[in-house]
Amino acid sequence: MRSALALAARGLGNTWPNPAVGCVIVTNGPGGGRVVGRGWTQPGGRPHAERRALDQAGEAARGATAYVTLEPCAHHGKTPPCAEALIAAGVARVVTALTDPDPRVAGRGHAMLRAAGIAVTEGICATEARALQAGFLKRVEQGLPFVTLKLATTLDGRIATASGESRWITGAEARRAVHAMRMRHDAVMVGSGTARADDPDLTVRDMGSVRQPVRIVIDSRLSHSPGSRLGRSARQVPVWLIHTATASDAARAAWAATGAELIAVPEVDGHADLRAAMQALAGRGLTRVFCEGGADLAAVLIHDGLVDELAHFGAGALIGAEGRAALGPLGLKALADAPRLRRIETTPVGADVLTRWTLV
Amino acid sequence: MRSALALAARGLGNTWPNPAVGCVIVTNGPGGGRVVGRGWTQPGGRPHAERRALDQAGEAARGATAYVTLEPCAHHGKTPPCAEALIAAGVARVVTALTDPDPRVAGRGHAMLRAAGIAVTEGICATEARALQAGFLKRVEQGLPFVTLKLATTLDGRIATASGESRWITGAEARRAVHAMRMRHDAVMVGSGTARADDPDLTVRDMGSVRQPVRIVIDSRLSHSPGSRLGRSARQVPVWLIHTATASDAARAAWAATGAELIAVPEVDGHADLRAAMQALAGRGLTRVFCEGGADLAAVLIHDGLVDELAHFGAGALIGAEGRAALGPLGLKALADAPRLRRIETTPVGADVLTRWTLV
Repeated sequence: MRSALALAARGLGNTWPNPAVGCVIVTNGPGGGRVVGRGWTQPGGRPHAERRALDQAGEAARGATAYVTLEPCAHHGKTPPCAEALIAAGVARVVTALTDPDPRVAGRGHAMLRAAGIAVTEGICATEARALQAGFLKRVEQGLPFVTLKLATTLDGRIATASGESRWITGAEARRAVHAMRMRHDAVMVGSGTARADDPDLTVRDMGSVRQPVRIVIDSRLSHSPGSRLGRSARQVPVWLIHTATASDAARAAWAATGAELIAVPEVDGHADLRAAMQALAGRGLTRVFCEGGADLAAVLIHDGLVDELAHFGAGALIGAEGRAALGPLGLKALADAPRLRRIETTPVGADVLTRWTLV
Repeated sequence: MRSALALAARGLGNTWPNPAVGCVIVTNGPGGGRVVGRGWTQPGGRPHAERRALDQAGEAARGATAYVTLEPCAHHGKTPPCAEALIAAGVARVVTALTDPDPRVAGRGHAMLRAAGIAVTEGICATEARALQAGFLKRVEQGLPFVTLKLATTLDGRIATASGESRWITGAEARRAVHAMRMRHDAVMVGSGTARADDPDLTVRDMGSVRQPVRIVIDSRLSHSPGSRLGRSARQVPVWLIHTATASDAARAAWAATGAELIAVPEVDGHADLRAAMQALAGRGLTRVFCEGGADLAAVLIHDGLVDELAHFGAGALIGAEGRAALGPLGLKALADAPRLRRIETTPVGADVLTRWTLV
């Protein structure tokens, strides 16, 4: 199952709206224990992992055991159900990590296999599988995407000098690690201030051929220029703009003309309702969103309880109190109300230190 | 030599104004290679490491090799010279890591040993020894103490809420680690704002019997109350107050009456001249100073180039932009002017992450 989970991880960021699944097929009987098929969900979400592994195994799948990180699907979608494919291939046993919470599956895949006389073992490596598939699970169970917030700060928590200079606080290795993180998410998101200040591409670079993440700007008034890098490349790589009713008709028309997708959400407290925005993203199939700032967007996401993981790059530099803060106001009344995080792992990245934290 | 360095480290914080030295005596000849004496500089700086190791070795020192982390002293101070003691004990060979830069020694120890027919090897593990003895070396070579700055911050670089609430941002393990750090320094230092706000003891607690560090407050106007914990305990554990001419005669008299030592320094830019203050501390024998804030003192120390090492505790919490910053203003004109640090090591401490950085 660990091998199947490692295969599944290859699909992260590439399979939405489908889950990133891994499958390993192992022979049984005398001389058994040989891996005859390995598969993972392909870019765009199809073919599924089981189909790929079965194709690789061919006749060797007969009487074998299939390890799958998620319950095989039972419904006819754009592909025939994987449970049927496993039955047709004659596997003797299926081992899974999780039940698929998708209401079209939700135990029916397991039931279909058992009804065909296949031995089914569930819940193997369930904790690891839940962590890996957190985005898909959150989308199906809560109607929200899994959100990773990146903060790259000096030791005193600054992201730029008073004049806005921020290139570069972290080193080249950390910036490359950020591209690898973008690659494992379905979308990259920034606020309008960051978009205007940096005119970013928000693409994955220098990582070989990849499916580019959707590029999202939270931009209530559509203040970012349609002539920006994002606007000019919106037909090549999707750009989604979250705006409110405060955006002018002219701005909407100009952005629509670039090929960008406009998503209207209500306004709350003078800014876009981010819970509604995240629901809209999940509704369009996004499972994993990578937020790269700025400080005010990060603060509202944190305040609204929408962040799942924080990737903190700590750089060996100091800027001092005049510098720009990593996080906008949270409106805390007492320290007891401060959002708390549990450490997942700490890794030196070049001269910087990456610590991944989960919100608790 | 590594064994001698490990012994030397036991003395850090306890031996000022003397260096923390370690000594291991190993037999030679047939059946040799046996450790017969181990010593390190004792609290208060005497007896010296060599004296302790020789006493332990007794007759076994004859013909043996002595590994010493610093050149043995050659001058009659409060103890007879260690070089003489090594000669009298009949050791055959002395291996050292560093030449003692103290002008009263400065090669004379090595020369005295060689003149007595002892084989001397210098410079073994010199890099490690320089790091270990950085405080003593800086005091002798630059007339300044080695300064470690502690910052304990949230992930967004805050040390308290807007209302000043700071207990607790880090966990119990991190706070215990801070006491262990205090123990390895000659003095603990805070600014007057921190002293007034927290009324701290600045003692080492729960670490067994230790020589307490000197407690220092940078307090230009002597605004901290003589009735504070520091004032009330100044006869038990030394309290040194750095002030300027802006302190009133009444405040000076009140503090002098507590038993605290008053150290006057010039004023620059509206605050105490910290370089002059550090020179005064080194002049009184301090080799290692541990600064625990607050933000403005930390910023001036950084700005003036007086900090050698930064111990950063990163806590899994977020306070937001209204919170109090870890560091006061640095007055940077450009990002290129930002103080940069090189990572020494990263260690999880309970739920927090400690990263030690050296200023570059």
